[in-house]
Amino acid sequence: MSSNERLIYLPLGGAGEIGMNAYVYGYGPKGKERYILVDIGVTFPDMDSSPGVDLIFADIAWLEERKDRLDAIFITHAHEDHVGAVGHLWHRLEAPVYARPFTAYHATRKMGEQGAPEDQVIIAQPWPAMIDAGPFKVSFMPLAHSIPESSGLVIDTPAGRIVHTGDFKMDETPLVGEAFDPVMWAEIAKPGVKALVCDSTNVFSQHAGKSEASVGPEITKLVSDARGMVVATTFASNVARVKTLADAGVAAGRSVCLLGRSMRRMVEAGHATGVLTDFPKTISPEDARELPRENLMLLVTGSQGERRAASAQLARGKYLGLTMKENDLFLFSSKTIPGNERGVIKIINSFSEMGVDVVDDRAGIYHVSGHANRPDLALAHEIMNPDLVIPMHGEHRHLREHVRLAAEHGRSAVLAVNGTMVDISRGGDIVDSIQTGRTYLDGSVQIGAMDGVVRDRIRMALNGHVLVTLIIDEKNEPLGEPWVELKGLPETGRSNAALQDVLEADLGQLVNRAGRKTLRDDDALEEALRREVRRSANNEVGHKPEVTVVVSRLA
Amino acid sequence: MSSNERLIYLPLGGAGEIGMNAYVYGYGPKGKERYILVDIGVTFPDMDSSPGVDLIFADIAWLEERKDRLDAIFITHAHEDHVGAVGHLWHRLEAPVYARPFTAYHATRKMGEQGAPEDQVIIAQPWPAMIDAGPFKVSFMPLAHSIPESSGLVIDTPAGRIVHTGDFKMDETPLVGEAFDPVMWAEIAKPGVKALVCDSTNVFSQHAGKSEASVGPEITKLVSDARGMVVATTFASNVARVKTLADAGVAAGRSVCLLGRSMRRMVEAGHATGVLTDFPKTISPEDARELPRENLMLLVTGSQGERRAASAQLARGKYLGLTMKENDLFLFSSKTIPGNERGVIKIINSFSEMGVDVVDDRAGIYHVSGHANRPDLALAHEIMNPDLVIPMHGEHRHLREHVRLAAEHGRSAVLAVNGTMVDISRGGDIVDSIQTGRTYLDGSVQIGAMDGVVRDRIRMALNGHVLVTLIIDEKNEPLGEPWVELKGLPETGRSNAALQDVLEADLGQLVNRAGRKTLRDDDALEEALRREVRRSANNEVGHKPEVTVVVSRLA
Repeated sequence: MSSNERLIYLPLGGAGEIGMNAYVYGYGPKGKERYILVDIGVTFPDMDSSPGVDLIFADIAWLEERKDRLDAIFITHAHEDHVGAVGHLWHRLEAPVYARPFTAYHATRKMGEQGAPEDQVIIAQPWPAMIDAGPFKVSFMPLAHSIPESSGLVIDTPAGRIVHTGDFKMDETPLVGEAFDPVMWAEIAKPGVKALVCDSTNVFSQHAGKSEASVGPEITKLVSDARGMVVATTFASNVARVKTLADAGVAAGRSVCLLGRSMRRMVEAGHATGVLTDFPKTISPEDARELPRENLMLLVTGSQGERRAASAQLARGKYLGLTMKENDLFLFSSKTIPGNERGVIKIINSFSEMGVDVVDDRAGIYHVSGHANRPDLALAHEIMNPDLVIPMHGEHRHLREHVRLAAEHGRSAVLAVNGTMVDISRGGDIVDSIQTGRTYLDGSVQIGAMDGVVRDRIRMALNGHVLVTLIIDEKNEPLGEPWVELKGLPETGRSNAALQDVLEADLGQLVNRAGRKTLRDDDALEEALRREVRRSANNEVGHKPEVTVVVSRLA
Repeated sequence: MSSNERLIYLPLGGAGEIGMNAYVYGYGPKGKERYILVDIGVTFPDMDSSPGVDLIFADIAWLEERKDRLDAIFITHAHEDHVGAVGHLWHRLEAPVYARPFTAYHATRKMGEQGAPEDQVIIAQPWPAMIDAGPFKVSFMPLAHSIPESSGLVIDTPAGRIVHTGDFKMDETPLVGEAFDPVMWAEIAKPGVKALVCDSTNVFSQHAGKSEASVGPEITKLVSDARGMVVATTFASNVARVKTLADAGVAAGRSVCLLGRSMRRMVEAGHATGVLTDFPKTISPEDARELPRENLMLLVTGSQGERRAASAQLARGKYLGLTMKENDLFLFSSKTIPGNERGVIKIINSFSEMGVDVVDDRAGIYHVSGHANRPDLALAHEIMNPDLVIPMHGEHRHLREHVRLAAEHGRSAVLAVNGTMVDISRGGDIVDSIQTGRTYLDGSVQIGAMDGVVRDRIRMALNGHVLVTLIIDEKNEPLGEPWVELKGLPETGRSNAALQDVLEADLGQLVNRAGRKTLRDDDALEEALRREVRRSANNEVGHKPEVTVVVSRLA
C-alpha cells in the first residue's frame, strides 16, 4: 500500500437502524478509490412515518455518482434487508452481483422482476475461493444464521484483511445451512484481521445463544399433544425452522401443508438449490381440506401479523378453503419485531374469539434467534482478534453497546452510523461524513423520503383536506360563490350546520369583501381563501385542515 | 326480588380491549331497569387506525337513549381509561358522578374543562359507607393499584351483591394508597357474592406480583451509583412510583425537579387531597439549571415515548433549559405498552447518540405492575367465592384466559365482550347483544368511528389525493381544459413528464371525446373523470389515488 492510498468503510444503510443494509468499501488514492458494495436491502414502511409507501431503500446517490468506480456487489444472504433492493436499484449501479446459489436464486428472480439483467448475478463458491473485484479479493465465508448459505465476507486488500460478518450466530447444529466452523474461523483469522465489521443485532442479549437444534423436540412435543388442527408460522425464509416444524408435524403423524406464497417459494428455492434435503412430503390445500383436522399441520406465512399473509387471513376467516376452529392450536415460532405488536395481537385476539389456543414464544422454547448474542460476539472478536471492531446491523443503541463490549475486552472499536466514512488503513479515523437517507418505492416510482410527498399524505391523514374552487370572470369579478369539498373532516361542527355550508358562507363573505387588488392576484386570493378555511374550520371543528385552492380565470 | 325483575351487566367499553372502560349495571323489570354506569374512560388513537383523532370513547348511544333511567356514575380511580371521558360525555348522560377525593379532584377538573357542572361530582366515603342509587347501594372498596384511592365497588341489589374490582393488585405495601386488606375482603365476601366482575389485565403473568416496596431499594442503588444527572420517567399518575423515585433521589443526595405538566399536576393533586404525605421538597427547573448535574434528579413525563412529553423533548435537545449529556442516566421505571415501542426506541436511540446511558425494565427490578397476576386473581376468586366470575379489563385473549383460570378452580365464569348483556340474576345467561363501538373526539367534534371521516383520511394517506376541476359553459361545452392539483403524489412517473401534465392531457382528451349526454350529466362526467385519473395515475406511478372532482357549470 502506497502512502496516499487508503481503505475506507462507508455504511449507506444498516448502521444506526436495523434493515436496509448497504455497505461500501473503497480502496485507492483519496477521491480515486475503487469500490465494492456489500448488500443492497430494503426496510419496511409504517403508517406513522411512511404511509402508502411500498418499500424503503438506502439512498445510494453517493455511490451512483461514482458507479464507474464500482467493481462489484456482494450479497451475504437472501433476507430482504440484504437482497431486497437489488432489482430496484441495479440500473443505478450496473455492477456484477455475486452471491452463493440460494441467495443468487432469489437475487436473479428480483432482477428479472424489475427488468434488470439476470445474467449479472454470478454464483460464488465459498471460502477458500476468492473473487477478484478491482483491488479487492473477496471470499464468501459460510456462517450459521436463519437462512441457508448465509455468509460473511473475507475482504482482502493491499491494506489488509477485513472480515464483514453479515448476519450470523455461532450455532454448531443449525440443521439447515452451515454450522459454526472454528477451524475455518481460525484459518481466516490467522494472517491478521485489520477490521471486523460485525453484526450488532443481539448485543443486548446477555446469554449465549441457543441452537436451532433445541427447538425441534419442544415443537414435536407441542404438536403431538395437540387435539385439533395445528397451524404454525415463522419467517418463510427461516428454512431450517420451516423444516423443523414440518418434521415435528410428521413425527406427530400429521400431513403437512404449506400456505402462503413466500412459504412455498422458499421451500422451492431450497429444493432447487440443493440446500434443503429430506424435507417431508407436503400436501396441497385441496387435499388438506379433505383430511380430519387432527391429522393436519399447516405452515403459514405472517409471523409478524402482516394483513395479507395467510395467518391474518385465517384469523379473519378462511384461507384457500381452510378455517380454524375451537380446540385448534396456533403456534408463533417467531419473535415479534418491535413495531409489529399491534398486528400480531389483533390476530391472537381473533383466534381467541374462535376458541383457538395460541402459543407464542413467551416461554423462550419454540424459537431461537438467528443472531449472535453478547457472549457470542465477544467470542467472535476473540477468534478474529482484529485491530479494529466496527459494529454494524443495529440502531445507535446497539452500535454503542457493541463498542462498549469491545472496550470491555480492551479492543479498539469505532461507532460509525450511516454516512460515516472510516479510514480503516489509518486506525479507524473518521475522515468524512456523507449525506445519506432513504428512498421510498411508492407504487412504481422512487421518491426521496424528504421530497414532501409523504409529508403531505401524513398531513392529510392528521388534518383532513378541504378543496376550494372559485371562478373569476374576465372583469376580475367572482362568478358565483366559492365552492367547498371536504375529505376526512366531520360533516358538522360547533354550529350544528353543515361544515361545508359554514365554510362556503364564510368564504363567500370574504370574496365579497375582497378588494380588486386581491381578486386580480392569484397568490393573494388563494392565501386569503386558505387562511379563512383554516380559521373557520378551526372554529367549527377544532382543527385546521390542509387546504387546496383552485382559482379558475375566464380570460 | 320479584320474578320478573333482573340484574344485568353490560360492558360498553373495556371488555374485549384494554382501555375505554364503561360498564352498565341494571336492575328492574326487563326493559324498565334502573341503571348505574361504572367508569367512563378513554383510549388513545394511533396513526394506523385513527389518524388525527384526539381521544377515543366508548359509544354510549344505548345508555344515552335510556338516560332518564340512569341514577349515577361511579368512577373507580383517576386513570384516563376510567375517568378520561367524564367531561366530554357527561352532557349526554346527566347523572351525578361519585368518586373518592383524589379521583373526584381529577373528575371535577375534567368536567370544568368541558363546561360540565363541577358540582355534579360528589365525593364518596370508602367502605363501609354506602351510596343509594335507585335500586343499587354502592360502596367504594379501597384497593391497591398504581394510583391513589383506587377502589373496587361493592354493588348491592335486591338480587344480591356484585363486586366490581376495577383495576387492582394484591399489594400489602403499596407505599401510597391503600394496602390489600384481607379482613375487609372477607367482610365484603361474607354475605355471599353473586358475581365478581374482575380485572383481567395480567392473567397471563404466571407469578404472584411483586410489591411496590420492592422497587425503592433497587432504584436508590441505581441513583446512588450514577455519575452524572439522573432522569427518570414513569406514568405521572403512578404517584407511589413518583414518590419512590423522588425518595431515591433524595437518599442519593440529589435535588429533585418535576418536569412535565401531568407530573406536576398529579403531585399537586396528591397534596391537595391529602393522599401524598412527606413527598420530598422539589426545586424549579430554573434552580435545577444552576446545580451541578451530579446533584440533580429529574422526574419527567413521557414513559411511553409520547412526542410532546418531557422525555421526548429532552431526547430532541432541550426542555426548559435543561439538556442531557454524556454519562447522564435515563431510567424508564415503567413498562412499554404494546404499540408504543417505536416511540420509546426512538428516544432511547436519541439518548444513545448523546452518550446517555438508558436503563429500562428489562431486568424486572425497576418497575412492578399495578395489576393482579394470575395467582393473585385466583386468590381474589377464592376470597370472594362468587357464584359467577365475569372477567373484564382485557382483550378477548385475556377474558378467555381468565374464564379458563376460573374453570381450573371449578368456578362458573362468563366471557362477555362489549355489548354482551349478562343476566346475573339468572346464572349469567347472555340475554341480549347491543350494538357498541367507538366515538372519536376529533378536534372539538365527536364522530362515530364508522362515519367514514377517518377512513377517508387513511385513504388519502395511503394513496394521495388528486383534485380535478372542470368548468362547463351554458351550452354544456367544456370551457377550457380540466385542471388537476396533486397532494401526496410523486411529481413525475414512468414517462418522466410531470404527473400533473400527464393527467391533464389524458383528462383533456377524455373531455374532448365525451358525448353531449355525458357532459350534461354531472354524475356521469365526474365518474368518467375519476376513472381516468385513477387509470392514468396507476399507469404513471403505480397506484390509484383518491380523487375529488368539482364540475362548475356556468348556468
